[in-house]
Amino acid sequence: MSPVDSRADARWTVELAGRRCLVTGGLGFIGSNLTSRLTRAGAHVVVVDSLVPSHGGRRENLLSDGEVEVIVADIGDRDAVADSAREAEIIFNLAGQVSHVDSMVDPVFDLEVNTRSHLAFLETLRAVESRARVVYTSTRQVFGHPQYLPVDEEHPVMPVDVNGVSQHATEHLHRLYGEFYDLESCVLRLTNVYGPRQRLTGDSQGFIPIFVRQALQDEEIVVYADGRQLRDCLYVDDVVDILLFAGISPDAPAQLFNVGTDEVHTVRAIADLIVSTAGSGRVASIPWPAHREMIAVGSYYTDWSKAKRTLGWMPKVGLREGIRRMIEYYRTFPTAIA
Amino acid sequence: MSPVDSRADARWTVELAGRRCLVTGGLGFIGSNLTSRLTRAGAHVVVVDSLVPSHGGRRENLLSDGEVEVIVADIGDRDAVADSAREAEIIFNLAGQVSHVDSMVDPVFDLEVNTRSHLAFLETLRAVESRARVVYTSTRQVFGHPQYLPVDEEHPVMPVDVNGVSQHATEHLHRLYGEFYDLESCVLRLTNVYGPRQRLTGDSQGFIPIFVRQALQDEEIVVYADGRQLRDCLYVDDVVDILLFAGISPDAPAQLFNVGTDEVHTVRAIADLIVSTAGSGRVASIPWPAHREMIAVGSYYTDWSKAKRTLGWMPKVGLREGIRRMIEYYRTFPTAIA
Repeated sequence: MSPVDSRADARWTVELAGRRCLVTGGLGFIGSNLTSRLTRAGAHVVVVDSLVPSHGGRRENLLSDGEVEVIVADIGDRDAVADSAREAEIIFNLAGQVSHVDSMVDPVFDLEVNTRSHLAFLETLRAVESRARVVYTSTRQVFGHPQYLPVDEEHPVMPVDVNGVSQHATEHLHRLYGEFYDLESCVLRLTNVYGPRQRLTGDSQGFIPIFVRQALQDEEIVVYADGRQLRDCLYVDDVVDILLFAGISPDAPAQLFNVGTDEVHTVRAIADLIVSTAGSGRVASIPWPAHREMIAVGSYYTDWSKAKRTLGWMPKVGLREGIRRMIEYYRTFPTAIA
Repeated sequence: MSPVDSRADARWTVELAGRRCLVTGGLGFIGSNLTSRLTRAGAHVVVVDSLVPSHGGRRENLLSDGEVEVIVADIGDRDAVADSAREAEIIFNLAGQVSHVDSMVDPVFDLEVNTRSHLAFLETLRAVESRARVVYTSTRQVFGHPQYLPVDEEHPVMPVDVNGVSQHATEHLHRLYGEFYDLESCVLRLTNVYGPRQRLTGDSQGFIPIFVRQALQDEEIVVYADGRQLRDCLYVDDVVDILLFAGISPDAPAQLFNVGTDEVHTVRAIADLIVSTAGSGRVASIPWPAHREMIAVGSYYTDWSKAKRTLGWMPKVGLREGIRRMIEYYRTFPTAIA
């Protein structure tokens, strides 16, 4: 841990020690990283996770984090979550499936997981008269094809897949429940996130975990066309940071924030960096597959100045360092790859 | 029937005779008026309606319209609708619940009816490889509080109730299925619609049917505050017109249209007109009830110039004439009031 990390940790300990936090999707990639940080800061954490195969939730993600209460349930299951929901002061609402491709294969399931369950969860919060802060994580995918770059919060929303539609509806639902009831809600629209505990198999969590797996297994990394699309990729610790800011800042409620970074690379350059960092794998180029091209959005990067201005957040981990840490993690825990 | 109506009917007969049309929600208010017109034009019409109590569907709405095949089912029920969906050339997708208030009482049900069932229906169309034109009717309620007037298609979408969220999601789903598959889809965002066959009981279909019922029963019409909010109200025959235009125009696919009229009145003036036309009832003013005020949006009226420009549609029936016809209908069929 660097001195900077220590100072940051000290701050969060002051803010979060003893606070009752509920993390939905807490066995997943971002959720488990968040839960570790909350636990380290002395928060009392309850995790709800449905452990739907392929969504990224794994019990192993929290094995090293001591005592965390884990409820294995869909967040829409009121009986399972009502008690924890009643007690929670801060709710990090990360549950859901994030695969754009899967949402086109089984769209009704995507809607059920990403919208219906969330609406039922919000109804549970209403029923228990929750006054919690609720931070919902959405996706930059709601914007679809960028009409301009970088993409700010005012950019038109025009999702190009069912996953974007269902998450956008759930953004609105969080806003409404914050307006009508005693909740304080806010929404984070995350750009591509990567890092330790990400699910590397399948293709449900974006291109970076796929590339990392292929590099670690000394396979070919396939880049569509020439891979010239630009992306801003955010290391998971930076996402955990903004989740904490959103969880405690008095300026977060009723707000929506685009979350990304100024460090922008082509997909091809990211693939090359992963190969050179891993010291294995190689990059190849193929034409766009049809089922991919129809949900491809071209270049995307984020105007995250509102998050900086309002919450004081900024990303700290550059891509080179982030990829280094991610690859080190999977070298250290090779069973986490599969 | 006026000479104008006859000419219009002749045109629709040329366009629609023998065409296979599917009308979802076809036992409801707008759906049954549309079905009558389609039948009169010689179209082959199949109606799907779930007859959910309170949504407005009534078998009596089509009693006088001869042979129409009616399937009583939720549109999400693939077994029930697949055959008709496969054969349909034009699908008027009007199923759903439109009550803003009900959507806040049982939001999960609203989402299931207005989004999940529609997504399942679109998946059925995909499964049967439909190449139909699909016209989906949404609501001006998706806009929420107008930021400017009149409200055009570019106006930001910020629904103030779950019904607006669920219908907005379904707009996006129709757009996506039109982009990805062989469907031709378009979306109509309707302003307040009124007329014969509207459900007058409950408060699920807007303020005009409530006012008409109260006037017919010589009761007090309650206007919140001073009733100064402006509204553009559209007679159902005009909505049927634009549905037909949207069903056949080569310029409709992939488009979204705001549908309203330039004739704008205050809610108070509309109440007064209804009382004077009915010759019964009286208007009173009370403060806003809390559960109403939270979903009230202030004045609203529509910029419908895109519909005129693109489809050649324009409204023909003024409010005075429309209210006269509506009251005449319920005087003639008093059992339709209850």
